[in-house]
Amino acid sequence: MNDQKKTGTPKDSHYARLRRAHREQSGAPARNARVQAGAPPLPEGLVRLYGLHTVRAALDNPSRSIRRMLVTRNAAQRLDIADLSSLAFPAELVEPRAIDALVGSDAVHQGVLVEAEARAPKPFSALGDASLVLVLDQVTDPHNVGAIMRSAVAFGADALITTARHSPAESGVLAKAASGALEHIDHIEVRNLANALEELHTAGFHTVGLDSDGPQPLEEAFQGGKLALVLGSEGKGLRQKTRETVRVLARLDMPGAIRSLNVSNAAAVSLYIARRWLAAA
Amino acid sequence: MNDQKKTGTPKDSHYARLRRAHREQSGAPARNARVQAGAPPLPEGLVRLYGLHTVRAALDNPSRSIRRMLVTRNAAQRLDIADLSSLAFPAELVEPRAIDALVGSDAVHQGVLVEAEARAPKPFSALGDASLVLVLDQVTDPHNVGAIMRSAVAFGADALITTARHSPAESGVLAKAASGALEHIDHIEVRNLANALEELHTAGFHTVGLDSDGPQPLEEAFQGGKLALVLGSEGKGLRQKTRETVRVLARLDMPGAIRSLNVSNAAAVSLYIARRWLAAA
Repeated sequence: MNDQKKTGTPKDSHYARLRRAHREQSGAPARNARVQAGAPPLPEGLVRLYGLHTVRAALDNPSRSIRRMLVTRNAAQRLDIADLSSLAFPAELVEPRAIDALVGSDAVHQGVLVEAEARAPKPFSALGDASLVLVLDQVTDPHNVGAIMRSAVAFGADALITTARHSPAESGVLAKAASGALEHIDHIEVRNLANALEELHTAGFHTVGLDSDGPQPLEEAFQGGKLALVLGSEGKGLRQKTRETVRVLARLDMPGAIRSLNVSNAAAVSLYIARRWLAAA
Repeated sequence: MNDQKKTGTPKDSHYARLRRAHREQSGAPARNARVQAGAPPLPEGLVRLYGLHTVRAALDNPSRSIRRMLVTRNAAQRLDIADLSSLAFPAELVEPRAIDALVGSDAVHQGVLVEAEARAPKPFSALGDASLVLVLDQVTDPHNVGAIMRSAVAFGADALITTARHSPAESGVLAKAASGALEHIDHIEVRNLANALEELHTAGFHTVGLDSDGPQPLEEAFQGGKLALVLGSEGKGLRQKTRETVRVLARLDMPGAIRSLNVSNAAAVSLYIARRWLAAA
Protein backbone atom coordinates (compact mmCIF):
# COMPACT_ATOMS: atom_id res chain seq x y z
CA MET A 1 0.00 0.00 0.00
CA ASN A 2 0.93 3.51 -0.63
CA ASP A 3 0.70 4.77 2.88
CA GLN A 4 1.86 2.12 5.19
CA LYS A 5 3.68 4.40 7.54
CA LYS A 6 0.85 6.80 8.02
CA THR A 7 -2.01 4.40 8.23
CA GLY A 8 0.20 1.72 9.65
CA THR A 9 0.97 2.28 13.25
CA PRO A 10 -2.46 2.02 14.85
CA LYS A 11 -3.80 -1.01 13.00
CA ASP A 12 -0.62 -2.93 13.51
CA SER A 13 -0.66 -2.49 17.23
CA HIS A 14 -0.37 -5.22 19.74
CA TYR A 15 -4.11 -4.96 20.28
CA ALA A 16 -4.98 -5.41 16.63
CA ARG A 17 -2.62 -8.35 16.41
CA LEU A 18 -4.27 -10.01 19.39
CA ARG A 19 -7.66 -9.60 17.73
CA ARG A 20 -6.36 -11.04 14.49
CA ALA A 21 -4.77 -13.96 16.28
CA HIS A 22 -8.03 -14.67 18.03
CA ARG A 23 -9.89 -14.60 14.75
CA GLU A 24 -7.41 -16.92 13.13
CA GLN A 25 -7.61 -19.34 16.01
CA SER A 26 -11.36 -19.35 15.84
CA GLY A 27 -10.90 -20.33 12.21
CA ALA A 28 -13.05 -17.77 10.45
CA PRO A 29 -12.43 -14.34 8.98
CA ALA A 30 -14.22 -11.71 10.97
CA ARG A 31 -16.63 -10.48 8.32
CA ASN A 32 -17.51 -14.03 7.38
CA ALA A 33 -18.08 -15.52 10.75
CA ARG A 34 -21.41 -13.97 11.42
CA VAL A 35 -22.87 -14.41 7.98
CA GLN A 36 -22.36 -18.12 7.84
CA ALA A 37 -23.15 -18.89 11.45
CA GLY A 38 -25.54 -21.80 11.65
CA ALA A 39 -24.94 -22.96 8.10
CA PRO A 40 -23.98 -26.61 7.74
CA PRO A 41 -20.20 -26.90 7.51
CA LEU A 42 -18.68 -27.72 4.15
CA PRO A 43 -16.36 -30.69 3.73
CA GLU A 44 -12.69 -29.71 3.64
CA GLY A 45 -11.60 -28.46 0.23
CA LEU A 46 -15.01 -27.24 -0.89
CA VAL A 47 -16.13 -23.65 -1.21
CA ARG A 48 -19.52 -22.00 -1.61
CA LEU A 49 -19.62 -19.60 -4.57
CA TYR A 50 -22.61 -17.33 -5.10
CA GLY A 51 -23.77 -14.45 -7.22
CA LEU A 52 -24.57 -14.50 -10.93
CA HIS A 53 -21.18 -13.40 -12.28
CA THR A 54 -19.26 -15.59 -9.92
CA VAL A 55 -21.28 -18.70 -10.66
CA ARG A 56 -21.39 -17.96 -14.40
CA ALA A 57 -17.59 -17.77 -14.45
CA ALA A 58 -17.33 -21.00 -12.43
CA LEU A 59 -19.70 -22.78 -14.86
CA ASP A 60 -17.59 -21.55 -17.78
CA ASN A 61 -14.34 -22.75 -16.22
CA PRO A 62 -13.76 -26.37 -17.29
CA SER A 63 -11.21 -26.88 -14.54
CA ARG A 64 -13.66 -25.89 -11.77
CA SER A 65 -15.27 -28.98 -10.32
CA ILE A 66 -18.81 -28.25 -9.11
CA ARG A 67 -20.54 -30.61 -6.71
CA ARG A 68 -24.04 -29.16 -6.54
CA MET A 69 -26.09 -26.07 -7.26
CA LEU A 70 -28.98 -24.34 -5.53
CA VAL A 71 -30.78 -21.91 -7.77
CA THR A 72 -34.01 -19.96 -7.88
CA ARG A 73 -36.23 -20.12 -10.93
CA ASN A 74 -35.42 -16.50 -11.70
CA ALA A 75 -31.65 -16.96 -11.42
CA ALA A 76 -31.73 -20.14 -13.54
CA GLN A 77 -33.42 -18.08 -16.23
CA ARG A 78 -30.85 -15.33 -16.00
CA LEU A 79 -28.07 -17.90 -16.21
CA ASP A 80 -29.73 -19.36 -19.31
CA ILE A 81 -30.13 -22.77 -17.73
CA ALA A 82 -33.30 -24.15 -19.28
CA ASP A 83 -33.01 -27.66 -17.90
CA LEU A 84 -31.37 -28.25 -14.53
CA SER A 85 -31.08 -31.96 -15.24
CA SER A 86 -28.79 -31.21 -18.19
CA LEU A 87 -26.07 -30.04 -15.83
CA ALA A 88 -23.15 -32.32 -14.97
CA PHE A 89 -23.93 -32.04 -11.25
CA PRO A 90 -27.06 -32.12 -9.08
CA ALA A 91 -28.99 -28.86 -9.18
CA GLU A 92 -31.98 -27.99 -7.06
CA LEU A 93 -34.64 -25.35 -7.65
CA VAL A 94 -35.05 -23.45 -4.38
CA GLU A 95 -36.50 -20.35 -2.81
CA PRO A 96 -34.03 -17.55 -2.02
CA ARG A 97 -34.18 -18.27 1.70
CA ALA A 98 -32.62 -21.70 1.18
CA ILE A 99 -29.51 -19.90 -0.04
CA ASP A 100 -29.81 -17.28 2.69
CA ALA A 101 -29.56 -20.14 5.16
CA LEU A 102 -26.19 -21.15 3.75
CA VAL A 103 -24.51 -17.81 3.17
CA GLY A 104 -26.54 -15.37 5.24
CA SER A 105 -29.19 -12.97 4.04
CA ASP A 106 -26.58 -10.21 3.84
CA ALA A 107 -24.75 -11.95 1.03
CA VAL A 108 -25.88 -10.70 -2.39
CA HIS A 109 -26.25 -14.20 -3.78
CA GLN A 110 -28.75 -13.19 -6.46
CA GLY A 111 -30.49 -16.54 -6.20
CA VAL A 112 -27.67 -18.89 -7.04
CA LEU A 113 -25.05 -20.83 -5.13
CA VAL A 114 -22.74 -23.68 -6.06
CA GLU A 115 -20.64 -25.88 -3.85
CA ALA A 116 -17.39 -26.50 -5.70
CA GLU A 117 -13.89 -27.71 -5.12
CA ALA A 118 -11.65 -24.88 -4.05
CA ARG A 119 -8.93 -24.26 -6.60
CA ALA A 120 -5.53 -25.36 -5.37
CA PRO A 121 -3.10 -22.43 -5.44
CA LYS A 122 -0.21 -23.08 -7.79
CA PRO A 123 3.48 -23.32 -6.95
CA PHE A 124 5.95 -20.69 -8.07
CA SER A 125 7.09 -22.90 -10.95
CA ALA A 126 3.69 -22.34 -12.61
CA LEU A 127 4.57 -18.72 -13.36
CA GLY A 128 5.65 -19.39 -16.93
CA ASP A 129 6.04 -16.56 -19.39
CA ALA A 130 4.58 -13.66 -17.45
CA SER A 131 5.32 -9.97 -17.87
CA LEU A 132 3.18 -8.42 -15.15
CA VAL A 133 2.75 -9.95 -11.72
CA LEU A 134 1.07 -8.66 -8.59
CA VAL A 135 2.49 -9.72 -5.22
CA LEU A 136 0.57 -9.28 -1.96
CA ASP A 137 2.48 -9.23 1.30
CA GLN A 138 -0.08 -10.47 3.82
CA VAL A 139 -3.17 -8.63 2.65
CA THR A 140 -5.80 -10.44 4.69
CA ASP A 141 -9.20 -8.92 3.93
CA PRO A 142 -11.09 -11.17 1.49
CA HIS A 143 -13.08 -8.25 0.04
CA ASN A 144 -9.86 -6.46 -0.81
CA VAL A 145 -8.11 -9.55 -2.17
CA GLY A 146 -11.16 -10.38 -4.30
CA ALA A 147 -11.34 -6.85 -5.72
CA ILE A 148 -7.58 -6.97 -6.35
CA MET A 149 -7.97 -10.24 -8.29
CA ARG A 150 -10.62 -8.58 -10.41
CA SER A 151 -8.37 -5.61 -11.18
CA ALA A 152 -5.41 -7.91 -11.81
CA VAL A 153 -7.38 -9.84 -14.44
CA ALA A 154 -8.81 -6.65 -15.93
CA PHE A 155 -5.36 -5.11 -16.36
CA GLY A 156 -3.94 -8.32 -17.73
CA ALA A 157 -1.65 -9.29 -14.86
CA ASP A 158 -0.43 -12.84 -15.45
CA ALA A 159 -0.43 -13.99 -11.87
CA LEU A 160 -1.17 -13.06 -8.30
CA ILE A 161 1.39 -14.19 -5.75
CA THR A 162 0.40 -14.38 -2.10
CA THR A 163 1.88 -15.90 1.02
CA ALA A 164 0.49 -19.23 2.19
CA ARG A 165 -0.03 -17.75 5.64
CA HIS A 166 -1.83 -14.50 6.41
CA SER A 167 -3.75 -14.53 3.15
CA PRO A 168 -7.46 -15.27 2.91
CA ALA A 169 -8.48 -18.72 1.72
CA GLU A 170 -10.76 -19.00 -1.29
CA SER A 171 -14.23 -18.20 0.02
CA GLY A 172 -17.61 -17.01 -1.10
CA VAL A 173 -16.82 -13.48 0.07
CA LEU A 174 -13.53 -13.38 -1.81
CA ALA A 175 -15.08 -14.95 -4.92
CA LYS A 176 -17.99 -12.49 -4.91
CA ALA A 177 -15.63 -9.54 -4.66
CA ALA A 178 -13.56 -11.04 -7.48
CA SER A 179 -16.72 -11.15 -9.63
CA GLY A 180 -15.53 -14.09 -11.73
CA ALA A 181 -11.83 -13.22 -11.70
CA LEU A 182 -11.07 -16.20 -9.47
CA GLU A 183 -11.56 -18.42 -12.51
CA HIS A 184 -9.14 -16.39 -14.64
CA ILE A 185 -6.14 -15.60 -12.50
CA ASP A 186 -3.14 -17.81 -11.84
CA HIS A 187 -2.95 -17.70 -8.08
CA ILE A 188 0.47 -18.67 -6.82
CA GLU A 189 1.03 -19.27 -3.15
CA VAL A 190 4.50 -19.18 -1.63
CA ARG A 191 5.79 -19.96 1.83
CA ASN A 192 8.53 -17.39 1.84
CA LEU A 193 7.92 -14.12 0.06
CA ALA A 194 11.52 -12.91 0.08
CA ASN A 195 12.61 -16.14 -1.62
CA ALA A 196 9.85 -15.72 -4.20
CA LEU A 197 11.02 -12.16 -4.91
CA GLU A 198 14.54 -13.46 -5.47
CA GLU A 199 13.12 -16.08 -7.83
CA LEU A 200 11.32 -13.28 -9.67
CA HIS A 201 14.64 -11.47 -10.00
CA THR A 202 16.25 -14.61 -11.39
CA ALA A 203 13.38 -14.84 -13.88
CA GLY A 204 14.15 -11.31 -15.06
CA PHE A 205 11.50 -9.38 -13.13
CA HIS A 206 11.96 -5.88 -11.83
CA THR A 207 10.26 -5.88 -8.41
CA VAL A 208 8.72 -2.64 -7.16
CA GLY A 209 7.41 -2.30 -3.61
CA LEU A 210 4.69 0.28 -2.99
CA ASP A 211 5.58 2.44 -0.01
CA SER A 212 4.42 5.90 0.96
CA ASP A 213 8.00 6.82 1.82
CA GLY A 214 9.44 5.36 -1.37
CA PRO A 215 12.21 7.54 -2.82
CA GLN A 216 10.61 7.86 -6.24
CA PRO A 217 7.17 8.08 -7.80
CA LEU A 218 5.88 4.80 -9.20
CA GLU A 219 5.83 6.24 -12.72
CA GLU A 220 9.63 6.49 -12.62
CA ALA A 221 10.35 3.21 -10.86
CA PHE A 222 10.06 0.76 -13.74
CA GLN A 223 12.64 -0.81 -16.01
CA GLY A 224 12.76 -3.78 -18.37
CA GLY A 225 9.86 -5.70 -19.79
CA LYS A 226 8.85 -7.77 -16.75
CA LEU A 227 7.35 -6.07 -13.73
CA ALA A 228 6.24 -7.29 -10.32
CA LEU A 229 4.23 -4.89 -8.15
CA VAL A 230 4.44 -5.66 -4.44
CA LEU A 231 1.78 -4.33 -2.07
CA GLY A 232 1.44 -4.74 1.68
CA SER A 233 -1.62 -4.55 3.84
CA GLU A 234 -3.12 -1.20 4.78
CA GLY A 235 -2.29 -1.75 8.40
CA LYS A 236 1.21 -3.07 8.22
CA GLY A 237 2.52 -2.20 4.81
CA LEU A 238 5.41 -4.20 3.44
CA ARG A 239 7.34 -6.23 5.98
CA GLN A 240 10.92 -5.20 6.61
CA LYS A 241 12.32 -8.24 4.81
CA THR A 242 10.10 -7.49 1.79
CA ARG A 243 11.28 -3.88 1.74
CA GLU A 244 14.87 -5.04 1.76
CA THR A 245 14.35 -7.58 -1.01
CA VAL A 246 12.48 -5.63 -3.70
CA ARG A 247 14.63 -3.84 -6.29
CA VAL A 248 13.06 -0.49 -5.55
CA LEU A 249 10.51 1.17 -3.28
CA ALA A 250 8.18 3.62 -4.93
CA ARG A 251 5.28 5.82 -3.91
CA LEU A 252 1.98 6.81 -5.41
CA ASP A 253 1.93 10.59 -5.36
CA MET A 254 -1.32 12.07 -4.21
CA PRO A 255 -1.95 15.79 -3.85
CA GLY A 256 -4.76 15.63 -1.29
CA ALA A 257 -5.18 15.85 2.47
CA ILE A 258 -5.24 12.06 2.74
CA ARG A 259 -2.20 10.33 1.33
CA SER A 260 -3.35 6.76 1.27
CA LEU A 261 -5.79 4.68 -0.71
CA ASN A 262 -7.68 1.57 0.13
CA VAL A 263 -5.28 -1.27 -0.77
CA SER A 264 -7.43 -2.51 -3.65
CA ASN A 265 -7.60 1.03 -5.03
CA ALA A 266 -3.84 1.38 -4.71
CA ALA A 267 -3.48 -1.94 -6.57
CA ALA A 268 -5.78 -0.78 -9.37
CA VAL A 269 -3.93 2.52 -9.87
CA SER A 270 -0.55 0.75 -9.74
CA LEU A 271 -1.66 -1.84 -12.28
CA TYR A 272 -2.89 0.93 -14.55
CA ILE A 273 0.47 2.70 -14.35
CA ALA A 274 2.44 -0.51 -14.90
CA ARG A 275 0.28 -1.57 -17.84
CA ARG A 276 0.71 1.82 -19.46
CA TRP A 277 4.46 1.59 -19.00
CA LEU A 278 4.65 -1.90 -20.49
CA ALA A 279 2.56 -0.80 -23.46
CA ALA A 280 4.95 2.09 -24.13
CA ALA A 281 8.10 0.03 -23.56
CA MET B 1 -18.46 2.31 -13.63
CA ASN B 2 -16.57 1.07 -16.55
CA ASP B 3 -18.59 -1.96 -17.29
CA GLN B 4 -22.15 -1.14 -16.62
CA LYS B 5 -23.53 -2.99 -19.58
CA LYS B 6 -21.69 -6.21 -18.93
CA THR B 7 -22.05 -6.39 -15.18
CA GLY B 8 -25.33 -4.55 -15.33
CA THR B 9 -28.20 -6.69 -16.33
CA PRO B 10 -28.31 -9.26 -13.55
CA LYS B 11 -27.90 -7.00 -10.53
CA ASP B 12 -30.46 -4.58 -11.77
CA SER B 13 -33.15 -7.16 -12.18
CA HIS B 14 -36.57 -6.96 -10.78
CA TYR B 15 -35.47 -9.32 -8.05
CA ALA B 16 -32.53 -7.17 -6.98
CA ARG B 17 -34.75 -4.13 -7.00
CA LEU B 18 -37.28 -5.84 -4.77
CA ARG B 19 -34.52 -6.75 -2.33
CA ARG B 20 -33.23 -3.20 -2.34
CA ALA B 21 -36.69 -1.79 -1.84
CA HIS B 22 -37.21 -4.10 1.08
CA ARG B 23 -33.92 -3.03 2.63
CA GLU B 24 -34.79 0.62 2.19
CA GLN B 25 -38.17 0.13 3.75
CA SER B 26 -36.66 -1.66 6.69
CA GLY B 27 -34.49 1.44 7.06
CA ALA B 28 -31.05 -0.12 7.18
CA PRO B 29 -28.42 -0.95 4.60
CA ALA B 30 -28.02 -4.70 4.29
CA ARG B 31 -24.46 -5.02 5.51
CA ASN B 32 -25.21 -2.78 8.44
CA ALA B 33 -28.39 -4.29 9.64
CA ARG B 34 -26.96 -7.37 11.21
CA VAL B 35 -23.94 -5.74 12.76
CA GLN B 36 -25.90 -3.21 14.72
CA ALA B 37 -28.81 -5.43 15.62
CA GLY B 38 -29.63 -5.04 19.27
CA ALA B 39 -27.66 -1.85 19.70
CA PRO B 40 -29.60 1.03 21.22
CA PRO B 41 -30.92 3.26 18.42
CA LEU B 42 -29.28 6.62 17.90
CA PRO B 43 -31.31 9.80 17.94
CA GLU B 44 -32.04 11.17 14.47
CA GLY B 45 -29.12 13.10 13.00
CA LEU B 46 -26.41 11.33 14.99
CA VAL B 47 -23.90 8.84 13.66
CA ARG B 48 -21.54 6.39 15.32
CA LEU B 49 -17.98 6.76 14.05
CA TYR B 50 -15.31 4.23 15.01
CA GLY B 51 -11.77 3.25 14.21
CA LEU B 52 -8.61 5.19 15.05
CA HIS B 53 -8.19 7.08 11.77
CA THR B 54 -11.86 7.89 11.51
CA VAL B 55 -12.14 9.17 15.07
CA ARG B 56 -8.81 11.02 14.88
CA ALA B 57 -10.05 12.86 11.78
CA ALA B 58 -13.36 13.64 13.50
CA LEU B 59 -11.53 15.01 16.57
CA ASP B 60 -9.37 17.18 14.31
CA ASN B 61 -12.36 18.56 12.44
CA PRO B 62 -13.58 21.68 14.27
CA SER B 63 -16.92 21.56 12.47
CA ARG B 64 -17.68 18.01 13.62
CA SER B 65 -19.83 18.12 16.74
CA ILE B 66 -19.14 15.12 18.99
CA ARG B 67 -21.62 14.15 21.68
CA ARG B 68 -19.75 11.40 23.53
CA MET B 69 -16.85 8.99 23.24
CA LEU B 70 -16.30 5.40 24.35
CA VAL B 71 -12.64 4.47 24.36
CA THR B 72 -10.40 1.72 25.68
CA ARG B 73 -7.30 2.60 27.68
CA ASN B 74 -5.15 1.35 24.83
CA ALA B 75 -6.97 3.35 22.15
CA ALA B 76 -6.90 6.52 24.29
CA GLN B 77 -3.14 6.14 24.46
CA ARG B 78 -2.82 5.65 20.72
CA LEU B 79 -4.99 8.71 20.14
CA ASP B 80 -2.72 10.67 22.51
CA ILE B 81 -5.56 11.51 24.86
CA ALA B 82 -3.91 11.69 28.26
CA ASP B 83 -6.90 13.05 30.12
CA LEU B 84 -10.42 12.15 29.06
CA SER B 85 -11.87 14.93 31.17
CA SER B 86 -9.99 17.47 29.05
CA LEU B 87 -12.22 16.71 26.09
CA ALA B 88 -15.10 18.98 25.16
CA PHE B 89 -17.59 16.10 25.44
CA PRO B 90 -18.20 13.21 27.83
CA ALA B 91 -15.74 10.35 27.33
CA GLU B 92 -15.89 7.03 29.05
CA LEU B 93 -13.11 4.46 29.52
CA VAL B 94 -14.56 1.08 28.49
CA GLU B 95 -13.66 -2.48 27.63
CA PRO B 96 -13.74 -3.37 23.90
CA ARG B 97 -16.95 -5.35 24.31
CA ALA B 98 -18.87 -2.21 25.26
CA ILE B 99 -18.11 -0.91 21.75
CA ASP B 100 -18.79 -4.33 20.21
CA ALA B 101 -22.27 -4.05 21.70
CA LEU B 102 -22.90 -0.85 19.74
CA VAL B 103 -21.32 -1.62 16.38
CA GLY B 104 -20.96 -5.40 16.37
CA SER B 105 -17.83 -7.42 17.02
CA ASP B 106 -17.22 -7.62 13.25
CA ALA B 107 -16.55 -3.89 13.04
CA VAL B 108 -12.85 -3.09 13.32
CA HIS B 109 -13.43 -0.31 15.84
CA GLN B 110 -9.93 -0.50 17.31
CA GLY B 111 -11.23 0.43 20.73
CA VAL B 112 -12.79 3.78 20.01
CA LEU B 113 -16.21 5.09 19.08
CA VAL B 114 -17.77 8.52 19.07
CA GLU B 115 -21.38 9.51 18.68
CA ALA B 116 -21.41 12.68 16.62
CA GLU B 117 -23.74 14.83 14.60
CA ALA B 118 -23.93 13.63 11.03
CA ARG B 119 -22.59 16.24 8.65
CA ALA B 120 -25.29 17.85 6.63
CA PRO B 121 -24.61 17.41 2.92
CA LYS B 122 -24.14 20.74 1.18
CA PRO B 123 -26.25 22.25 -1.60
CA PHE B 124 -24.88 22.65 -5.10
CA SER B 125 -24.17 26.32 -4.47
CA ALA B 126 -21.38 25.28 -2.07
CA LEU B 127 -19.25 24.04 -4.96
CA GLY B 128 -17.19 27.22 -5.19
CA ASP B 129 -13.96 27.28 -7.14
CA ALA B 130 -13.49 23.59 -7.91
CA SER B 131 -11.51 22.05 -10.76
CA LEU B 132 -12.08 18.34 -10.19
CA VAL B 133 -15.40 16.90 -9.08
CA LEU B 134 -16.59 13.33 -8.72
CA VAL B 135 -20.26 12.59 -9.35
CA LEU B 136 -21.91 9.33 -8.28
CA ASP B 137 -25.11 8.24 -9.98
CA GLN B 138 -26.81 6.09 -7.33
CA VAL B 139 -23.85 4.15 -6.00
CA THR B 140 -25.42 2.61 -2.91
CA ASP B 141 -22.83 0.43 -1.16
CA PRO B 142 -21.42 2.33 1.84
CA HIS B 143 -18.07 0.47 1.65
CA ASN B 144 -17.64 1.60 -1.94
CA VAL B 145 -18.77 5.17 -1.32
CA GLY B 146 -16.45 5.41 1.70
CA ALA B 147 -13.47 4.12 -0.29
CA ILE B 148 -14.38 6.51 -3.12
CA MET B 149 -14.42 9.46 -0.70
CA ARG B 150 -10.96 8.43 0.47
CA SER B 151 -9.63 8.30 -3.10
CA ALA B 152 -11.37 11.57 -3.96
CA VAL B 153 -9.62 13.34 -1.09
CA ALA B 154 -6.29 11.64 -1.89
CA PHE B 155 -6.41 12.76 -5.52
CA GLY B 156 -7.50 16.24 -4.55
CA ALA B 157 -11.05 16.21 -5.89
CA ASP B 158 -12.82 19.29 -4.62
CA ALA B 159 -16.23 17.77 -4.08
CA LEU B 160 -18.27 14.62 -4.25
CA ILE B 161 -21.75 15.01 -5.69
CA THR B 162 -24.36 12.35 -4.97
CA THR B 163 -28.08 12.06 -5.35
CA ALA B 164 -30.20 12.59 -2.26
CA ARG B 165 -31.98 9.30 -2.95
CA HIS B 166 -30.26 5.97 -3.60
CA SER B 167 -27.05 7.04 -1.92
CA PRO B 168 -25.92 5.72 1.46
CA ALA B 169 -26.39 7.97 4.46
CA GLU B 170 -23.38 8.86 6.57
CA SER B 171 -22.76 5.80 8.71
CA GLY B 172 -20.06 4.06 10.68
CA VAL B 173 -19.42 1.64 7.82
CA LEU B 174 -19.10 4.45 5.29
CA ALA B 175 -16.93 6.52 7.62
CA LYS B 176 -14.63 3.58 8.38
CA ALA B 177 -14.15 2.87 4.68
CA ALA B 178 -13.46 6.58 4.14
CA SER B 179 -10.72 6.39 6.79
CA GLY B 180 -11.00 10.02 7.78
CA ALA B 181 -11.89 11.36 4.33
CA LEU B 182 -15.41 12.14 5.49
CA GLU B 183 -14.01 15.11 7.40
CA HIS B 184 -12.18 16.47 4.35
CA ILE B 185 -14.51 16.21 1.41
CA ASP B 186 -17.23 18.63 0.40
CA HIS B 187 -20.18 16.33 0.01
CA ILE B 188 -22.88 17.86 -2.13
CA GLU B 189 -26.28 16.23 -2.38
CA VAL B 190 -28.63 17.00 -5.22
CA ARG B 191 -32.20 15.97 -5.95
CA ASN B 192 -31.86 15.83 -9.68
CA LEU B 193 -28.56 14.70 -11.13
CA ALA B 194 -29.25 15.81 -14.70
CA ASN B 195 -29.96 19.33 -13.46
CA ALA B 196 -26.76 19.26 -11.44
CA LEU B 197 -24.80 18.21 -14.51
CA GLU B 198 -26.27 21.14 -16.42
CA GLU B 199 -25.26 23.42 -13.58
CA LEU B 200 -21.76 21.98 -13.81
CA HIS B 201 -21.75 22.82 -17.51
CA THR B 202 -22.83 26.37 -16.75
CA ALA B 203 -19.99 26.58 -14.23
CA GLY B 204 -17.54 25.61 -16.97
CA PHE B 205 -17.11 21.93 -16.20
CA HIS B 206 -16.50 19.27 -18.80
CA THR B 207 -18.56 16.28 -17.64
CA VAL B 208 -17.34 12.81 -18.52
CA GLY B 209 -19.48 9.72 -17.88
CA LEU B 210 -17.67 6.40 -17.39
CA ASP B 211 -19.21 3.72 -19.56
CA SER B 212 -17.77 0.48 -20.88
CA ASP B 213 -19.25 1.24 -24.28
CA GLY B 214 -18.02 4.81 -24.34
CA PRO B 215 -16.75 5.84 -27.79
CA GLN B 216 -13.34 6.96 -26.56
CA PRO B 217 -10.78 6.05 -23.94
CA LEU B 218 -10.91 8.20 -20.81
CA GLU B 219 -7.40 9.51 -21.48
CA GLU B 220 -8.70 11.25 -24.61
CA ALA B 221 -12.01 12.45 -23.24
CA PHE B 222 -10.92 15.54 -21.33
CA GLN B 223 -10.87 19.20 -22.26
CA GLY B 224 -10.56 22.48 -20.40
CA GLY B 225 -9.43 23.04 -16.86
CA LYS B 226 -12.52 21.88 -14.95
CA LEU B 227 -13.48 18.22 -14.98
CA ALA B 228 -16.37 16.24 -13.53
CA LEU B 229 -16.12 12.44 -13.57
CA VAL B 230 -19.49 10.70 -13.43
CA LEU B 231 -19.71 7.07 -12.29
CA GLY B 232 -22.73 4.81 -11.97
CA SER B 233 -23.23 1.78 -9.80
CA GLU B 234 -21.72 -1.56 -10.75
CA GLY B 235 -25.11 -3.05 -11.23
CA LYS B 236 -26.90 -0.36 -13.14
CA GLY B 237 -24.27 1.90 -14.56
CA LEU B 238 -25.25 5.42 -15.51
CA ARG B 239 -28.94 6.03 -15.90
CA GLN B 240 -30.20 6.90 -19.36
CA LYS B 241 -30.84 10.53 -18.46
CA THR B 242 -27.32 10.81 -17.05
CA ARG B 243 -25.84 9.30 -20.21
CA GLU B 244 -27.73 11.82 -22.29
CA THR B 245 -26.68 14.78 -20.16
CA VAL B 246 -22.92 14.34 -19.78
CA ARG B 247 -20.73 15.99 -22.42
CA VAL B 248 -19.04 12.74 -23.32
CA LEU B 249 -19.06 9.05 -22.48
CA ALA B 250 -15.67 7.42 -22.09
CA ARG B 251 -14.33 3.99 -21.23
CA LEU B 252 -11.46 2.66 -19.20
CA ASP B 253 -9.55 0.36 -21.52
CA MET B 254 -8.53 -2.92 -19.94
CA PRO B 255 -6.70 -5.65 -21.80
CA GLY B 256 -7.77 -8.60 -19.64
CA ALA B 257 -10.45 -11.27 -19.62
CA ILE B 258 -12.59 -9.22 -17.25
CA ARG B 259 -13.48 -5.77 -18.46
CA SER B 260 -14.83 -4.20 -15.35
CA LEU B 261 -13.48 -2.97 -12.06
CA ASN B 262 -15.04 -2.63 -8.66
CA VAL B 263 -16.64 0.85 -8.73
CA SER B 264 -14.26 2.27 -6.13
CA ASN B 265 -11.30 0.95 -8.14
CA ALA B 266 -12.73 2.47 -11.32
CA ALA B 267 -13.10 5.77 -9.44
CA ALA B 268 -9.49 5.64 -8.22
CA VAL B 269 -8.07 4.95 -11.68
CA SER B 270 -10.28 7.64 -13.24
CA LEU B 271 -9.24 10.18 -10.63
CA TYR B 272 -5.60 9.33 -11.28
CA ILE B 273 -6.03 9.87 -15.01
CA ALA B 274 -7.96 13.13 -14.53
CA ARG B 275 -5.45 14.48 -12.04
CA ARG B 276 -2.58 13.70 -14.40
CA TRP B 277 -4.39 15.47 -17.21
CA LEU B 278 -5.09 18.56 -15.09
CA ALA B 279 -1.45 18.68 -14.00
CA ALA B 280 -0.30 18.61 -17.62
CA ALA B 281 -2.93 21.09 -18.83
